[in-house]
Amino acid sequence: MSGFEIEPIGTVASPLTDLESAPKQGDEGAPEAWIDFDAGVLEGLRGVEPGQDLIVLTWLDRARRDVLTVHPRSDTSRPLQGVFSTRSPDRPNPIGLHRVEILAVEGSRVRVRNLEAVDGTPVVDLKPVLGSER
Amino acid sequence: MSGFEIEPIGTVASPLTDLESAPKQGDEGAPEAWIDFDAGVLEGLRGVEPGQDLIVLTWLDRARRDVLTVHPRSDTSRPLQGVFSTRSPDRPNPIGLHRVEILAVEGSRVRVRNLEAVDGTPVVDLKPVLGSER
Repeated sequence: MSGFEIEPIGTVASPLTDLESAPKQGDEGAPEAWIDFDAGVLEGLRGVEPGQDLIVLTWLDRARRDVLTVHPRSDTSRPLQGVFSTRSPDRPNPIGLHRVEILAVEGSRVRVRNLEAVDGTPVVDLKPVLGSER
Repeated sequence: MSGFEIEPIGTVASPLTDLESAPKQGDEGAPEAWIDFDAGVLEGLRGVEPGQDLIVLTWLDRARRDVLTVHPRSDTSRPLQGVFSTRSPDRPNPIGLHRVEILAVEGSRVRVRNLEAVDGTPVVDLKPVLGSER
């Protein structure tokens, strides 16, 4: 099967610059961050407001795509597990899923809490939390 | 910013063949479905077991990528809303997020409940539910 082209819609601007020091989960201490959205998609932000919980999808462009098994949480004492039952960034399509809280919307910039992605990470989508849209 | 190549890891096999009759949310009546995984990624399924709730990411290849605002749930009496605060399949990167329950794992096929994607939809990732992996 052939692939598809995924196009970034924005970029993470965060004090997190180092993968090693990045928390493995957003609620383990990620600093507040901005998402800078591209001018061409700003209409899509209509209705995004402070206080909402949304899912940010990123493309983890530093990840390895040829990895299929990992030690969970990089703990080599734990047995190898398939990446599809872990949140390893290393996986065939390195899409990151991050539940964030919207803190502010200022033009093309959106401030968020709990985004555990490093500075410069491409953002590819923003969605409601599963089951929250009725 | 340039794009990235997203490669399907499998395909949905479902009795759902019609977008119009497809439920908008998995818990609104999606039938059980199979995901057929490509031979090259089967190691990644190690640890995927019946009873787990996982997130399936699909590439909604019939969606329109030039849409930035929609009427929520196709109800034209509701005001236009930016796609990033809706689950519209039409959006710049048409990634579908589906919370499913694993019913069976049979070789390269995984049977799931609550997958509201039509037959033939490419699958691009499989992940733990947010916050469930510790």
